[in-house]
Amino acid sequence: MIPAPLGRLVAQLAKLPGIGEKTAQRLAFHILRSPREYAQELSQALLETVERVRLCTRCFALSDDELCGFCRDQRRDDGVLCVVEGIADLMAIERTREFRGRYHVLHGVLSPLDGVGPDQLRIKELLSRLGDGKVEEVILATNPDVEGEATALYLTRLLKPFGLTVSRIAQGVPIGGDLEFADQATLARALSARREL
Amino acid sequence: MIPAPLGRLVAQLAKLPGIGEKTAQRLAFHILRSPREYAQELSQALLETVERVRLCTRCFALSDDELCGFCRDQRRDDGVLCVVEGIADLMAIERTREFRGRYHVLHGVLSPLDGVGPDQLRIKELLSRLGDGKVEEVILATNPDVEGEATALYLTRLLKPFGLTVSRIAQGVPIGGDLEFADQATLARALSARREL
Repeated sequence: MIPAPLGRLVAQLAKLPGIGEKTAQRLAFHILRSPREYAQELSQALLETVERVRLCTRCFALSDDELCGFCRDQRRDDGVLCVVEGIADLMAIERTREFRGRYHVLHGVLSPLDGVGPDQLRIKELLSRLGDGKVEEVILATNPDVEGEATALYLTRLLKPFGLTVSRIAQGVPIGGDLEFADQATLARALSARREL
Repeated sequence: MIPAPLGRLVAQLAKLPGIGEKTAQRLAFHILRSPREYAQELSQALLETVERVRLCTRCFALSDDELCGFCRDQRRDDGVLCVVEGIADLMAIERTREFRGRYHVLHGVLSPLDGVGPDQLRIKELLSRLGDGKVEEVILATNPDVEGEATALYLTRLLKPFGLTVSRIAQGVPIGGDLEFADQATLARALSARREL
């Protein structure tokens, strides 16, 4: 009984992660109540995004050009390369405003059970970026979980022969956290990786 | 640093109710990872919805034609008219599969503080539907809150002179609920509106 175009809109919205049938319907009603320009602009943004956004040919971050903004930015430090699993991780690091070097996005982690080996990741491309000798340090910023650790370990062995510094982001108790509620593994790591003051 | 089209997509998605900046980014990444057809179909559904979906000229439910599916359906009972505040309420009633009459959508409730009087609602149109004498009962299914009650009361006074049955959806403890946790007002209503068995 729901008009066909609205039914299709609800069905498409319900395919988004975390959005069920009822939420999709609520969103669709909201869109219908909004000025018509909103749907037109959202529609346009969707098309432009999938048509124009692709992967940077150097670091594999998102870009609307051959090279992404991070690779094009001349003020960033060519000497430090931060390796991340995915775009969302890159964004999280960028939000800290702590890092002014370059990035390299693996687009995954080693996960033999899921059939992801080194060839499925952008590792070959990472190695070829080290050829010009500009990079002095590679920061491994994969997630602090089993696959992320395994990937970092694998990359460390691969990168060491290049004679550059290979580092891993620090693991320990999170800022503002409470020792009482920290999990065992994190607290144990915080102790073993303690720093002299 | 985020590619411009993606930035616009995130901004547009973040305008949806209940979707913040981070969720919008997550949705945008999901859309980018999905087959391109998904964005195209969603984009198309958005445009078609705002271009083709309008209000039924009789009951003011959503429709892609002069009359909506509820008004066109010849198997529905012309004798009973269910008056609701909005489309979402109509959908909720329809999901029960309990009601096979016609609908009338007010598109709001009386709310003097918000400047909504009878002229802002589809009340004139409701009265004109009663002219042909087919309707025998009007069910007032506005929300069981202050504005909904006030609107139901106002409509009752308006409809009584037509000599038809005017009814109000039952109020009481919800099915599956627990008396211990029912609020006072609901429980008091459940007592005063008790039914003889």
